[in-house]
Amino acid sequence: MHISKAIITAAGKSQAHLPLQSVVNRSGDVCTALETLLNDVTSAGIEEIAIIIRPGSANEYRTAAGRHAERLSFFEQDNPRGYGDAILRAKRFAGDQYFLHLVSDHLYVSRTEKSCAAQLIEVATREQCSVSAVQPTRENQLASFGAVGGSPVALKSGLYQVTEVIEKPTPTIAEQHLIVAGQRAGHYLCLFGMHVLSPAIFELLEKNIAQLPDGQLASLSDSLNRLAHTQRYLASELDGVRYNIGEKYGLLIAQMAIALSGGDRDRVLTELLELVAKN
Amino acid sequence: MHISKAIITAAGKSQAHLPLQSVVNRSGDVCTALETLLNDVTSAGIEEIAIIIRPGSANEYRTAAGRHAERLSFFEQDNPRGYGDAILRAKRFAGDQYFLHLVSDHLYVSRTEKSCAAQLIEVATREQCSVSAVQPTRENQLASFGAVGGSPVALKSGLYQVTEVIEKPTPTIAEQHLIVAGQRAGHYLCLFGMHVLSPAIFELLEKNIAQLPDGQLASLSDSLNRLAHTQRYLASELDGVRYNIGEKYGLLIAQMAIALSGGDRDRVLTELLELVAKN
Repeated sequence: MHISKAIITAAGKSQAHLPLQSVVNRSGDVCTALETLLNDVTSAGIEEIAIIIRPGSANEYRTAAGRHAERLSFFEQDNPRGYGDAILRAKRFAGDQYFLHLVSDHLYVSRTEKSCAAQLIEVATREQCSVSAVQPTRENQLASFGAVGGSPVALKSGLYQVTEVIEKPTPTIAEQHLIVAGQRAGHYLCLFGMHVLSPAIFELLEKNIAQLPDGQLASLSDSLNRLAHTQRYLASELDGVRYNIGEKYGLLIAQMAIALSGGDRDRVLTELLELVAKN
Repeated sequence: MHISKAIITAAGKSQAHLPLQSVVNRSGDVCTALETLLNDVTSAGIEEIAIIIRPGSANEYRTAAGRHAERLSFFEQDNPRGYGDAILRAKRFAGDQYFLHLVSDHLYVSRTEKSCAAQLIEVATREQCSVSAVQPTRENQLASFGAVGGSPVALKSGLYQVTEVIEKPTPTIAEQHLIVAGQRAGHYLCLFGMHVLSPAIFELLEKNIAQLPDGQLASLSDSLNRLAHTQRYLASELDGVRYNIGEKYGLLIAQMAIALSGGDRDRVLTELLELVAKN
């Protein structure tokens, strides 16, 4: 398995401007959130990247991509029918290869030298199957995420065989279907917004959308759930954290996490403490 | 004196994207940096706002302005000749009235209920003359600002008669020309990026630009210096702080300052401490 293509979704109404936001990355360089994502992705060996965007925003994205611009292909999502539909727009781009998929409203902060994307691709290549990154998440946050049920893979810490995927489950549904052995009480494995997926996902998305009532939006989770019943499909914890920059204060918290994990830690910490003291 | 118009400069190469950045304001609403500026400006009684932009960016700005969009006029700075030239583009817009001027790469955080813009307009209206907001600034930061020399106005704390304005003075020049009685040692009164200016400034800017050698950029400070020799011109400290969001980590620090001074203080402080503990 050689994974050389990535699909990034950025067409959501509230998320389209997020990749264009300015951040200081771990190396201390000022760049856009998109550039940070693309740095991680390309350093993980990805050569071509499809971005699903709102019609008319390709130029802004191309500018925001900096030195990665020439690796990008844009797919405009006209008549949008949800997240699942957005991914489907890049079906031809992906062809018959496994591909990396990320959402664009998250920033991923690795705890090691290896980016989250590189960690995930390593697991998928070793296991030769689809793998979704997951993060143990408290029950009270289930309303924001897709969550997976399954069982730990023997002798491989942080790796799970997925049996079920449910989008934004209620606590009751989660307790009935998504308890995973070894997790802390009240914690579930929620999607991290980063996946390596088999091209089989496109057919599942197509079927899912064909069956949806008019006006209903296609999720990715429904099709991931179908994938779990069709092919070997794993979930993997990574040595890193995802920050949702679409949330209120999401960008502040993400920027702080990046700064505190990088070379400017002392400088930023000093400035923050001064602010706290003054306010 | 009734001040109803504002001129915001946003055409600088490195600053053009800054007003489009997303922030959470003091009321806890997610909006663009531009919207935050416009909230302050309109709550201070300003009815019409000119924004000097790079050619072709009016649409992005109109979107970023949110509910203030209809108050805006855009002036594209083609063949740019610096900051002074940018302001001059709005000469007709201002007419023969005093106007408020702000730069767009700063965020202003008031320490009171009254915005910094409202405080400044209050001073100018009371004193019936041009007034530049200033902030006492350490000598080692002189390279980033224009600085003013002058003398305290009797019986009015924080108000100064300006005799001289110098753009980015060296410490030696500052010591010779810009010492103001009552300032702490090694501190100078640096421009805050916010002014109420007499329409006489436009003629001074025109003269200044006509005299500049080809290729040299027009500052505002040179013409403010001329203004100080022509009309009554004051500098005023405000009860607030300016944050330069164009600096590295500028947006992080500004966002933190806003959050710590608003209703979400406890929530943000808790998240910050958790992050520090984890990293």
